[in-house]
Amino acid sequence: MASPQQPKIAKRPSIRRLPQYLSLLRQMRSVGRPNVSSAHLACDMGLEAIVVRKDLGITGIEGRPRIGYEVDALIKAIEEFLGWNDTSSAFLVGAGHLGSALLGYGGFADHGLDIVAAFDTDPGRVGTMVHGKAVFGMDRLAELRARMQVHLGILCVPASAAQAVAELMVDAGIRGIWNFTPVKLKTPDDVVTHQEDLASGLAVLSVALSQLFATQQD
Amino acid sequence: MASPQQPKIAKRPSIRRLPQYLSLLRQMRSVGRPNVSSAHLACDMGLEAIVVRKDLGITGIEGRPRIGYEVDALIKAIEEFLGWNDTSSAFLVGAGHLGSALLGYGGFADHGLDIVAAFDTDPGRVGTMVHGKAVFGMDRLAELRARMQVHLGILCVPASAAQAVAELMVDAGIRGIWNFTPVKLKTPDDVVTHQEDLASGLAVLSVALSQLFATQQD
Repeated sequence: MASPQQPKIAKRPSIRRLPQYLSLLRQMRSVGRPNVSSAHLACDMGLEAIVVRKDLGITGIEGRPRIGYEVDALIKAIEEFLGWNDTSSAFLVGAGHLGSALLGYGGFADHGLDIVAAFDTDPGRVGTMVHGKAVFGMDRLAELRARMQVHLGILCVPASAAQAVAELMVDAGIRGIWNFTPVKLKTPDDVVTHQEDLASGLAVLSVALSQLFATQQD
Repeated sequence: MASPQQPKIAKRPSIRRLPQYLSLLRQMRSVGRPNVSSAHLACDMGLEAIVVRKDLGITGIEGRPRIGYEVDALIKAIEEFLGWNDTSSAFLVGAGHLGSALLGYGGFADHGLDIVAAFDTDPGRVGTMVHGKAVFGMDRLAELRARMQVHLGILCVPASAAQAVAELMVDAGIRGIWNFTPVKLKTPDDVVTHQEDLASGLAVLSVALSQLFATQQD
């Protein structure tokens, strides 16, 4: 019996690397390069060529001997695999510091993501516009989600509210949560989540930097 | 022969989790809770208690039988371990969409980080203020870095410029780079980097969400 979860987990490191290939390939396209070998991509990515061929194989594209990959075709295949060729709508919940920053970030369009509205509990924010996006009260979430056919929610509330708000989002019909809080969410099996913990990244960097200085003072 | 790199790598998953403990502990402190057991933290974190004790052990704090950890002492120990009790200054390089969003994000203060200035190559941005932070030309980087004693740089330039700008930062004396570009940077051994690739996170979530819908339509 095959579990539907299994392939997702097995391919996760490959999937994580696809945006990096996409970024490299878009650079190559911008300078008019038609083909690229797996060896060249491997060097740019700091990987073995065999890993590159395996990573790109999940999109269904194979390189040809002596020619390599067609840059245009590979860009298209990766975009289609990630669903970034079509634009997906998302709601953002929690229009505080980080939420407002994300609402103002124009780069999501490159990844096929359009934040169409924001939601908040703060009466001072509800009814306002943040970077051109309307902020609604949480009581409108279910109705607007169904009407606008939105499945993805970006969670940017304070840690203390994260689990409760995630449950409201799931109840409203959100099926994918991009979690920018430091809280490990408990969600049903038919909801996918991905945690983007900026604080974790900063922690690793802070400690590495202090260890670097400690080493040099020895 | 002990390598100075080895302990850093071995402890990396523990270090990544410390901000999550900190967030939980700050919530506990806010409701006046004096102590917490490793079993309780393990449940909240979705980990085994033995892992919690090992994670927290790197800060030098041990729990006591029947009492557990003192919440206040543990918060202090984690903040000190991460260096988040003192404020570190950072420069941000690349004041475009994402860079501006990060300049406007007020949450870094909780992690002891203060972005003191921004740098850009665009003559239209140099000399302006973005969210109250001055934007300087890249030619001022080395001088201001030395004068303000800044060691950490946040890299938010387009992918095509990332490696070249990282090299300018290293030449100017930046020793830690928080890399928000999709490019894998090549830096000298005495520079630490941490990549924060939002696109990778979105890729994993996009694919998981489409697989979820595909499974349900079977």
